[in-house]
Amino acid sequence: MQKSSRSRFSLQVVGKILYLQQAVLVEYLELQMVCQVILLSTDRWAEKDVNPALFSRELMRNSSNFLDDDEVNRDPQILLMKAHAATSSVGSATVIIAVLEKTGTLKIASVGDCGLKIIRKGQVVFSIYPQEHYFDCPYQLSSEAAGQTYQDALVCSVNLLEGDTIVSGSDGLFDNIFDQEIISIISESPGVDETAKALAELARKHSVDVTFDSPYSIEARSRGFDVPWWKKLLGAKLTGGKMDDITVVVARMNTVAVPGAEGGSI
Amino acid sequence: MQKSSRSRFSLQVVGKILYLQQAVLVEYLELQMVCQVILLSTDRWAEKDVNPALFSRELMRNSSNFLDDDEVNRDPQILLMKAHAATSSVGSATVIIAVLEKTGTLKIASVGDCGLKIIRKGQVVFSIYPQEHYFDCPYQLSSEAAGQTYQDALVCSVNLLEGDTIVSGSDGLFDNIFDQEIISIISESPGVDETAKALAELARKHSVDVTFDSPYSIEARSRGFDVPWWKKLLGAKLTGGKMDDITVVVARMNTVAVPGAEGGSI
Repeated sequence: MQKSSRSRFSLQVVGKILYLQQAVLVEYLELQMVCQVILLSTDRWAEKDVNPALFSRELMRNSSNFLDDDEVNRDPQILLMKAHAATSSVGSATVIIAVLEKTGTLKIASVGDCGLKIIRKGQVVFSIYPQEHYFDCPYQLSSEAAGQTYQDALVCSVNLLEGDTIVSGSDGLFDNIFDQEIISIISESPGVDETAKALAELARKHSVDVTFDSPYSIEARSRGFDVPWWKKLLGAKLTGGKMDDITVVVARMNTVAVPGAEGGSI
Repeated sequence: MQKSSRSRFSLQVVGKILYLQQAVLVEYLELQMVCQVILLSTDRWAEKDVNPALFSRELMRNSSNFLDDDEVNRDPQILLMKAHAATSSVGSATVIIAVLEKTGTLKIASVGDCGLKIIRKGQVVFSIYPQEHYFDCPYQLSSEAAGQTYQDALVCSVNLLEGDTIVSGSDGLFDNIFDQEIISIISESPGVDETAKALAELARKHSVDVTFDSPYSIEARSRGFDVPWWKKLLGAKLTGGKMDDITVVVARMNTVAVPGAEGGSI
């Protein structure tokens, strides 16, 4: 069988869940077309004797199940709506879903404090950020009516190019690591596995370093949080990483030849 | 005549071109559906006795003319292609084009070192960044074959919501002002006019402040640029804003009722 010259994009995806600060199991899905990052909201639900992992696990499972649903039609916001509606567990979670079209367009829906960056030719060219009610209180999909819905999602898309690297993760990643560090790690890592591991490890290292002037501490100071005034007089300032669960999903854009004679181009 | 409850999005747009470092006239277009920011590349062309404003002016004029072209079909990347092909002046420019669909989707194509941020409920939720060959050498559409083309554009889209503020500008803006400052100015300004003016004025103030630790100086240090070693020993570091042309376009997302009984919703 002859291979046509037609090609399509595929993602080489790896997910790493590392360095949980609390004894809660977090799972991840490795799908050809979907990167999902679910960050658990552990404290509040643990107080209510609810296993905070159940909601996010079911939400992820439902997201996976609805991916090829006709009504969803590969729209990540509709996918969020249906997955959330089908989730019966008690709890809440922030979530980001990214669906890659064969044309190379990555469609994204995000509720809460996950993030996603596109690194192209050694530069961050695209970024989405956390949505918070106030500092450290993110949007969440929830089993309670007070939570956010798919309508609160940030919905966007970006046309990927061959060689683009997608780094998605929880605030535990982006609060502890600078863009320039992400770029350096990508340039030094042979593949997405090594990139994800190195990113998670550096984020963990920074998260426990009380002297590191992290993105989190810089943001906190810009919001008016700092050391007491008498420490300021001695030249001190609020520093340190943010101890948190760290979730990293790294994907790299490849063009692959696919068999078939039908028309259409990327 | 009865007004239906159907509504569509519109943008309240203002453009400000302020504080040119060189005596080059820059013009801007105020269109309902298009924000354009063209940054001039003055130095190289001035050496060749070319008026560097001509290329960008013609490119902008062509972009405006092709906006309703059937082949363009409101695709900003195709718009860039056609506008660039129709431009006969000698020179080069970085450019960002954003086209708002009636559905509320902002479609963006960017070549070079302009930027665009979406501020929603007091937070930056979306950002695109400069594309550079190396530090301070941006991608550009050019009259010369060595330049970039529409195919090098960063192409993306974002679904806007009521009340979103769009801040687009040249590197003279984003190299001199932090996200938190942008957010503060938006919250304190009664309208887009005042926001654009205040952003440009603060960026100008920072650009000439040699002690200000600007986004530009932080980026420069992260790329290995700094004061000589003996100054470092004395506790000094590279600081200061970036003296450059400053272009700001601010738009705010409004929902407006439109007459008409035909179906369709946003």
